Amino acid sequence: MADDSTQKPAGADSSSEDRLIARYFAPLASDPGAFGLIDDAAAITPSAGCDLVMTTDGVIAGVHFFPDDPPDTISRKALRMNLSDLAAKGARPIGFLMAIALPSAVDDAWLAAFAQGLGEDARRYDCPLLGGDTDHTPGPLSVSIAAFGEVPHGGMVRRSSARVGDCVVVTGTIGDSALGVRLRRDADLAAKWQLTEAMQAQLKQRYLLPEPRNALADVVLHHASAAIDVSDGLAGDLAKLCRASAVAAAIDVVRVPLSEAARAAAAAEPALIEAMLTGGDDYEIVVTLAPEKLQAFRAEAERVGVAVSEIGRIAAGEGARFLRGGKALAFARPSYSHF
Amino acid sequence: MADDSTQKPAGADSSSEDRLIARYFAPLASDPGAFGLIDDAAAITPSAGCDLVMTTDGVIAGVHFFPDDPPDTISRKALRMNLSDLAAKGARPIGFLMAIALPSAVDDAWLAAFAQGLGEDARRYDCPLLGGDTDHTPGPLSVSIAAFGEVPHGGMVRRSSARVGDCVVVTGTIGDSALGVRLRRDADLAAKWQLTEAMQAQLKQRYLLPEPRNALADVVLHHASAAIDVSDGLAGDLAKLCRASAVAAAIDVVRVPLSEAARAAAAAEPALIEAMLTGGDDYEIVVTLAPEKLQAFRAEAERVGVAVSEIGRIAAGEGARFLRGGKALAFARPSYSHF
Repeated sequence: MADDSTQKPAGADSSSEDRLIARYFAPLASDPGAFGLIDDAAAITPSAGCDLVMTTDGVIAGVHFFPDDPPDTISRKALRMNLSDLAAKGARPIGFLMAIALPSAVDDAWLAAFAQGLGEDARRYDCPLLGGDTDHTPGPLSVSIAAFGEVPHGGMVRRSSARVGDCVVVTGTIGDSALGVRLRRDADLAAKWQLTEAMQAQLKQRYLLPEPRNALADVVLHHASAAIDVSDGLAGDLAKLCRASAVAAAIDVVRVPLSEAARAAAAAEPALIEAMLTGGDDYEIVVTLAPEKLQAFRAEAERVGVAVSEIGRIAAGEGARFLRGGKALAFARPSYSHF
Repeated sequence: MADDSTQKPAGADSSSEDRLIARYFAPLASDPGAFGLIDDAAAITPSAGCDLVMTTDGVIAGVHFFPDDPPDTISRKALRMNLSDLAAKGARPIGFLMAIALPSAVDDAWLAAFAQGLGEDARRYDCPLLGGDTDHTPGPLSVSIAAFGEVPHGGMVRRSSARVGDCVVVTGTIGDSALGVRLRRDADLAAKWQLTEAMQAQLKQRYLLPEPRNALADVVLHHASAAIDVSDGLAGDLAKLCRASAVAAAIDVVRVPLSEAARAAAAAEPALIEAMLTGGDDYEIVVTLAPEKLQAFRAEAERVGVAVSEIGRIAAGEGARFLRGGKALAFARPSYSHF
């Protein structure tokens, strides 16, 4: 420091964090309420008569993704995990905040790819970046996102409102991601499970990049009695819904939708059904609904291009039972947890 | 896995993450829209005619706090950093989401203290926990918070709306935290700076635990032309406000409010003025306002118990100049950045 009035005034240059934000993330902040990421906070005007739905979920390198995963899939996965929660609640996305902690090894090319993938998803899901926080960390890279959506006042689809007699419906296919991560960790499994190259690629892709069911959000909103995002495994998440609703579920294992790849793996190693039903990262939605609504739900789901399968019923009691040949499967580890 | 119907149904027990949330964090989720943290998301009903103000900021062990800091100060600091942003924007807190990444060394006693401090602050600032995400990490402990507030529609106090001729006012005292962290790192400085025990304790406390100026938020909302939270140092943050507003600021260094401890340190080592003006973690607010509003602003600030000091003026041009004896100080590192 010196008393030298010929030098630049304080702060005429911005910090490296500011430059990084301006270069990579400000272009994603398309909502006027994000103020181009130059303010302390964002401001959004909620739609009249709507509630704001908010959720947060994050990823840590080595815990939720492989450190050498393509950077665009890391940012997309972090956003899509949160979008999946909004979809399960019947909410339309509004935007998100993102806090990232970057190890020093991260370079411009990595950041550019990370931001590009994130920007593409922000546009695809109509969920703009509203603000963020960027730090360096001596630890692994992490991305923490808080996402916001809207539902008509009082309309958020809860976990706790399933009713005895409701149908249990699940979107997409279950267990692909749990198999995909195993393939990533042990390449020998592909031969053991007799998977084609295409099947291997499909299972790995399901782990790498979730396909959240936001297209179905409005259908969930109008028909579901209760719903939950399947992120910690179908068995564990359905059990959470049952606990919250003080009901039981009886699931017919043969009706749980499996991809062709998952069916091939299960044919080669039947015990894999536990991994598929209890593994995480499906990012499907389990919906309960009154039986008389099932036909309309199916029709509307088909219209928005989301496959749905009825897999069982809600009953009195507690716990989610997965029945095969009249007997309940018992799982060594019912719910997947990164924790 | 076994086909054994005598075992418990899947998911009758909750995961360790669920137990941790139920034990430590659900008691903090006092807002009915948090659903006791048992759902995928929270739902809040915004007040009619209000905008939602949202911000995110986080802390990482070894970057933003010392790993052996008391756990209750870590959670409080993470929340208060965000509350400070809301205060600077004139927003009333509504609630927050929290994502925490915990190393395996964290035990129940640590978590209990962390949650207790957070709960006390959530009540003190009327800012309840609305939801969260809990993960284990192989890296340092981190806490990422997204906080929400409300302002009347269109009323968020921006950085970009300072006007030529406005007064520049700052709350509290500047630079204590920058000195406090230096004392934490080098105990010999206390003697060099001729600080009493009480002065040392006060400076360290300012670093350990911010005192955000939320009591002033409503006064800022009604009087400020622009405002910014002082978290990266007065010089750098005021420069950001000037850039955003396309104006300059001329600050009278001798009018920058310093604590007795900071004045003692500056008397012993005059060059410390740079550290005080450019150091981070003040969590004060810089406000610009029309001169005719200054008297009312002062009176209302006094009524809510927040000290405010007029330190300079907004002028045409660019950059924030800190003037002493008619000359502008030049700083080696104008803006503090954890990044």
